[in-house]
Amino acid sequence: MRIFEQIESRVRGYVRSFPVIFESSEGATMTDESGRQYIDFFAGAGTLNYGHNNERINSALIEYISNKGPHHTLDMATTAKKKFLTKLYDTILQPRNLDYKVQFTGPTGTNSVETAIKLARMIKGRSNIVAFTNAFHGLTMGSLSITGNNFYRDEAYISRSNVSFMPYDSYLGADVSTIDLFRKLLSDNSSGLDLPAAVIVETIQAEGGVNIASSEWLRELSQVCNEFDILLIIDDIQVGNGRTGDFFSFEESGIKPDMVTLSKAIGAGLPLALLLFRSDLDQWKPGEHTGTFRGNNLAFVASYEALHYWDDMDLSNAVKYKSDIIRKEIEAIAEKYPELNASVRGRGMIFGLEIPEMGFCSQISERCFENGLIIELAGADDQVVKFLPPLVIDEETLLKGMSIVEQSIGELLEEKKQNLTGEM
Amino acid sequence: MRIFEQIESRVRGYVRSFPVIFESSEGATMTDESGRQYIDFFAGAGTLNYGHNNERINSALIEYISNKGPHHTLDMATTAKKKFLTKLYDTILQPRNLDYKVQFTGPTGTNSVETAIKLARMIKGRSNIVAFTNAFHGLTMGSLSITGNNFYRDEAYISRSNVSFMPYDSYLGADVSTIDLFRKLLSDNSSGLDLPAAVIVETIQAEGGVNIASSEWLRELSQVCNEFDILLIIDDIQVGNGRTGDFFSFEESGIKPDMVTLSKAIGAGLPLALLLFRSDLDQWKPGEHTGTFRGNNLAFVASYEALHYWDDMDLSNAVKYKSDIIRKEIEAIAEKYPELNASVRGRGMIFGLEIPEMGFCSQISERCFENGLIIELAGADDQVVKFLPPLVIDEETLLKGMSIVEQSIGELLEEKKQNLTGEM
Amino acid sequence: MRIFEQIESRVRGYVRSFPVIFESSEGATMTDESGRQYIDFFAGAGTLNYGHNNERINSALIEYISNKGPHHTLDMATTAKKKFLTKLYDTILQPRNLDYKVQFTGPTGTNSVETAIKLARMIKGRSNIVAFTNAFHGLTMGSLSITGNNFYRDEAYISRSNVSFMPYDSYLGADVSTIDLFRKLLSDNSSGLDLPAAVIVETIQAEGGVNIASSEWLRELSQVCNEFDILLIIDDIQVGNGRTGDFFSFEESGIKPDMVTLSKAIGAGLPLALLLFRSDLDQWKPGEHTGTFRGNNLAFVASYEALHYWDDMDLSNAVKYKSDIIRKEIEAIAEKYPELNASVRGRGMIFGLEIPEMGFCSQISERCFENGLIIELAGADDQVVKFLPPLVIDEETLLKGMSIVEQSIGELLEEKKQNLTGEM
Amino acid sequence: MRIFEQIESRVRGYVRSFPVIFESSEGATMTDESGRQYIDFFAGAGTLNYGHNNERINSALIEYISNKGPHHTLDMATTAKKKFLTKLYDTILQPRNLDYKVQFTGPTGTNSVETAIKLARMIKGRSNIVAFTNAFHGLTMGSLSITGNNFYRDEAYISRSNVSFMPYDSYLGADVSTIDLFRKLLSDNSSGLDLPAAVIVETIQAEGGVNIASSEWLRELSQVCNEFDILLIIDDIQVGNGRTGDFFSFEESGIKPDMVTLSKAIGAGLPLALLLFRSDLDQWKPGEHTGTFRGNNLAFVASYEALHYWDDMDLSNAVKYKSDIIRKEIEAIAEKYPELNASVRGRGMIFGLEIPEMGFCSQISERCFENGLIIELAGADDQVVKFLPPLVIDEETLLKGMSIVEQSIGELLEEKKQNLTGEM
Repeated sequence: MRIFEQIESRVRGYVRSFPVIFESSEGATMTDESGRQYIDFFAGAGTLNYGHNNERINSALIEYISNKGPHHTLDMATTAKKKFLTKLYDTILQPRNLDYKVQFTGPTGTNSVETAIKLARMIKGRSNIVAFTNAFHGLTMGSLSITGNNFYRDEAYISRSNVSFMPYDSYLGADVSTIDLFRKLLSDNSSGLDLPAAVIVETIQAEGGVNIASSEWLRELSQVCNEFDILLIIDDIQVGNGRTGDFFSFEESGIKPDMVTLSKAIGAGLPLALLLFRSDLDQWKPGEHTGTFRGNNLAFVASYEALHYWDDMDLSNAVKYKSDIIRKEIEAIAEKYPELNASVRGRGMIFGLEIPEMGFCSQISERCFENGLIIELAGADDQVVKFLPPLVIDEETLLKGMSIVEQSIGELLEEKKQNLTGEM
Repeated sequence: MRIFEQIESRVRGYVRSFPVIFESSEGATMTDESGRQYIDFFAGAGTLNYGHNNERINSALIEYISNKGPHHTLDMATTAKKKFLTKLYDTILQPRNLDYKVQFTGPTGTNSVETAIKLARMIKGRSNIVAFTNAFHGLTMGSLSITGNNFYRDEAYISRSNVSFMPYDSYLGADVSTIDLFRKLLSDNSSGLDLPAAVIVETIQAEGGVNIASSEWLRELSQVCNEFDILLIIDDIQVGNGRTGDFFSFEESGIKPDMVTLSKAIGAGLPLALLLFRSDLDQWKPGEHTGTFRGNNLAFVASYEALHYWDDMDLSNAVKYKSDIIRKEIEAIAEKYPELNASVRGRGMIFGLEIPEMGFCSQISERCFENGLIIELAGADDQVVKFLPPLVIDEETLLKGMSIVEQSIGELLEEKKQNLTGEM
Repeated sequence: MRIFEQIESRVRGYVRSFPVIFESSEGATMTDESGRQYIDFFAGAGTLNYGHNNERINSALIEYISNKGPHHTLDMATTAKKKFLTKLYDTILQPRNLDYKVQFTGPTGTNSVETAIKLARMIKGRSNIVAFTNAFHGLTMGSLSITGNNFYRDEAYISRSNVSFMPYDSYLGADVSTIDLFRKLLSDNSSGLDLPAAVIVETIQAEGGVNIASSEWLRELSQVCNEFDILLIIDDIQVGNGRTGDFFSFEESGIKPDMVTLSKAIGAGLPLALLLFRSDLDQWKPGEHTGTFRGNNLAFVASYEALHYWDDMDLSNAVKYKSDIIRKEIEAIAEKYPELNASVRGRGMIFGLEIPEMGFCSQISERCFENGLIIELAGADDQVVKFLPPLVIDEETLLKGMSIVEQSIGELLEEKKQNLTGEM
Repeated sequence: MRIFEQIESRVRGYVRSFPVIFESSEGATMTDESGRQYIDFFAGAGTLNYGHNNERINSALIEYISNKGPHHTLDMATTAKKKFLTKLYDTILQPRNLDYKVQFTGPTGTNSVETAIKLARMIKGRSNIVAFTNAFHGLTMGSLSITGNNFYRDEAYISRSNVSFMPYDSYLGADVSTIDLFRKLLSDNSSGLDLPAAVIVETIQAEGGVNIASSEWLRELSQVCNEFDILLIIDDIQVGNGRTGDFFSFEESGIKPDMVTLSKAIGAGLPLALLLFRSDLDQWKPGEHTGTFRGNNLAFVASYEALHYWDDMDLSNAVKYKSDIIRKEIEAIAEKYPELNASVRGRGMIFGLEIPEMGFCSQISERCFENGLIIELAGADDQVVKFLPPLVIDEETLLKGMSIVEQSIGELLEEKKQNLTGEM
């Protein structure tokens, strides 16, 4: 791995947590150059919902390349893009009665977020944006300004301009309605909270620690936005694309956001990002917002295939089924090891196991990797183990992965006990 | 094409200039669904330096996919990434004595630019960045703040914070040294120009109208940056990767920038972006700057193959040879039609034909497309026809493309003459 | 009054509420050109704590002018300034054990506030400032950014940069501790609240609606600032200088702020503003912050005389005595007219009578003026009648003023009743 | 002077250059506590155009105070204010055909500047403001953002937001028209210069080094503003009020600015500031911009008297007469001591003697003070001796002051020579 240490910037991160060289991958399994296999509970940070090297997708990619389909076309029309758009409309938008326009932004989540807040500010002629505690929306300047975590910021780079942070659902405990607080500040014209152009929110704060907004809270938030003429943007980059069992994570709540950002799994492993918005918000001038790679045709091909998972309810049902398994397993772990003081939360196929002891989650992730499982952390202090397997993982592999977690925690606690004894 | 009008945002642009659906492409030729062929003098805005569906690259992609190489891996290590990094070092950096670290940013040019200015501000602890008139660096908030063109901006979205624009080479005419002006403002502590953390500059302003900085000017700029302890960032996104005949566009001038942004052609058609910087500037904390798609393995595979073009001088020589052809042909056009009052400028395989008459360049592009050529415009008023063919275009196709331009201009002028006669 | 309408900007305000031309004034009484007298319950927005044309002050001014004492001296030393500084130290700072340095800023409150936040940011090297809901700190750009009321702002002029608003004491009702909320956000490094350089707070939000922070809350706030290394700035411009009975409004709570802004009554009617700060915070370079009128010697002369009020406890005791009178009288009004649904709050000689019915307070102020009393409103919706008489008002005048309020409200309610009857 | 060192902040400046305690002053002379007299060539930084303790003004002040005229009235109407407004209209505005509205801002220059740029941005709905190299407009946040000198700024306090600096007249030498540069940048929609709401400019940059804009340049600037629909604000705080011989410094050029800021000498030594603007720009809502001390009646009284100087041409003619004297004297000094390499510039009764040798001007000022003259420096490096006597100085005192300068320079040069000899 010398070349990485020699010339890749020290900013590199995951290569430190999972220090092997991966050579191939399939479904929910990755294999390193020595042939060792790892179960993947990380799924490329939510990008690989449809699994590694999905056969159907791979076949389509090979066929497309073999037929010399254009790879890169900016925002020209191609056969691949036409098929993708048609499929998106027929399978996703139309059945859900979502009258959305589709904008192809640069193929990263942060591009989509930047586009959303730019369009919102332009339309409303207001500069303020409301985001939430522990929000993560990306690291380019606009997205970073609405991201909570100080770790990514530097005073010299970014100032908190025209952004107001509100407490997320349950941030102030079960007894304080954070929506009431928001409404009071909006109603008071001397509160210091300027009427925002938009509110941007994740239904589940994945990076922020697997914090889950209730459907009730989302409906109230949507209601407040309506009352005060504020656009509601759902950032569905990490938990859209089926992670919660529905295609969009907000479906369960019944709200209809004004804008939706999509990236990660929408490209089925290839870079792609979309911004969806109500058609009356389509107030761009032609060419007013661009980006070289907004026409990544291989991603269109892959995504077209992936969208077939939404032709029926099979995937959706499978997610719900496996959700129950994960919950049961994690709760069993929390129960088995009460000394963890762990708490469990999750929805669909994203779960968090929060452990108050500082640094313990890092040990779990490390030990799991030694035991053959890739699993990552979340939360500002890495205090949460995040369970994020591909949606298409088979039950056996899922259970095996869960048992590695259980076993790894067991080992760590045992060693701790022995250390304590040894010290005495 | 109804689906595009129905659900794609009206922000779409090139699909309006080139209103056909492309189905396949090869080398410097694109084919639409009706089988009609077009010569490509646009090259995906400089992304397709190595041509469409380059055979060597395609074979490698198909092999990689067939072998189930991982597609998406964030910044974990993979065999494909290792090969790419090694090749980049051996073929590009090491032979040029460039002691650069490589950072994989989100795979779009603007991501790379955002990363550069963030790192520069962090290192120097200063917030100001100097950019130049007619600069184009991207459209996310940080990059947009250093982009000249007002068309992309909106007061509600972005304020000009901590950015100072200086006139580019020759902006004030041949007699005024814009470097002298810059030095005077830096020397005067009451000039209102705060000492910047960095200067960011394109050696050729491609979007800005094919404006070309002389080697002399670049050396003086580099010298000023040295004197005042300012980092020099070369944005080589559009004209790096061989466009000028050398791999980096600044090689001819002999300067060694502190940072270099690369994107577009570095991925050979697939999304990829890099930031290179002097190793002593590698002051990131692990994970401090991230981006989901910074591990686009298909792009590593494609780029690895493309970098073989730099094993010897063949491509470089070919660019110089074809550069002469293009220059000769464009100058012939300008000479043949003196009524255009056209001026010609270019370097390597990027050329601009500037025509003062407002709107005439648009007509040329449109007519060329009707005649089978894809060619785009540049400059704040679209007053420049931009010649940007794939570097690997064969001589015959190149000449055929040039003749379409000549013929299209001839037709337009002829029709204009007839219209004038008709009006009398 | 034609000249005012003819050439004074329509921004003029109080001249509309009190549309007469005042010719002379004394104590708590103003007289217009027609000889009509008005009791003054406004005291120049808290500037005239020592009354209009205080005899002792007037004599000193006349003597100073007659002796050709310099009027304007920037920050050179003068005899008048020496006397003022010595008196301030001997009578105010030294007896209270306040180890403060004195900075003479431009002679307006907002100048003092700007200086405070500039110094705080410079010292801490952080850009964020925390202010509170309903705060009013002035209208120059820096002060305006920390002022809650939207009425004074315009998107084109100011963006909310590096300012975070927290809820003031009791803003979320009696049950929610706003200090707990603040502490939680500070403790959570992903909350989006950047660690501020300073917190700025009014102990009583006079403009904001006579909102009163409890001593307990101020102590907790001071404690949080200590814990997180944040400077605490008390803006004592309107309620310092004895308004609450003590010289500084925070004395009762026992806290020792890091900085204190003083203006309004410190000049006893002439423009003067000071910034006080802990001597270890005196990190200015000579001349680094200036302002032409920071040496207003007539104000030094006036203030020197006024400070003699603090030689003993007489004024302090008188304020407490009259505070009880005001409270009793206002509460009697609220009780007599239950249909007002009024609430009463106050401390020292600042009181608010809040009446929910939109616009009714304006009617009260207008009617009071007709009946010979100058009284103003507060709160974002002008929903509070603000009682702010000179501290030196005599009991008889005070009671007469109170009875005008009572009578005016009675008249208005009576007329309302008759209108309702008439309408039937 | 111990009390100053003990409790005044180290930010104090002039008290260090002129370390005596002043007790009285009259005309152009100040007297310290020991009875020593100093000629005043500083005039309170241009505030004391009408001299210290002007007899007519003093008498009026004493009479006003004796009659118990109100001192402090916010923006209520008073007899004193009415007289002042009427006089300003009759004597200044009406005869010059200036259809200006008058806004009373907080009584400091920076308040007036802040108000001007706020109003300009509000009216035009644009955020950018253009200021010039070496501009000085004040030190509150808005004014500071358009002030060139870095000495007053700190990254933590202020970012350069929505401000563009252009080179002042002659900044790039005699051959480069800085207006042409400005026009080119405005015409080019990709220059990075956003169309500003306003241009703010001093006709003479007093603090900036006594840089003088030609009438021609001012006319061209006014013309460009007209062409591009930009408001032109003349900051006449230091050189208005007769300093150049006319009441407004821009009269000579014939332009009619859209806004004019006035402060310093308009109050004849007492704090007062005005903003004048074309009546169609009076788009404020009542009370939208305020400031406690905008009703400083003693200043109205003083200013009313001072404005009588403009009843005829006497003062104007006297300024021109004394201007010639000063010029002749300074030029004689420059000629007598060619080793200074000094250059002389000035207009009316403001002159600068620029001496390239770093630090020599400070020695001159210091030596002059020892010899009985108060004189200050200007320019970013204190490289200019600034001559700024009261306009009403009598010829004898003026000549005596000039001879002190000459003598002081002579002494310094002689000592230098001796030191050099001594060193050998």
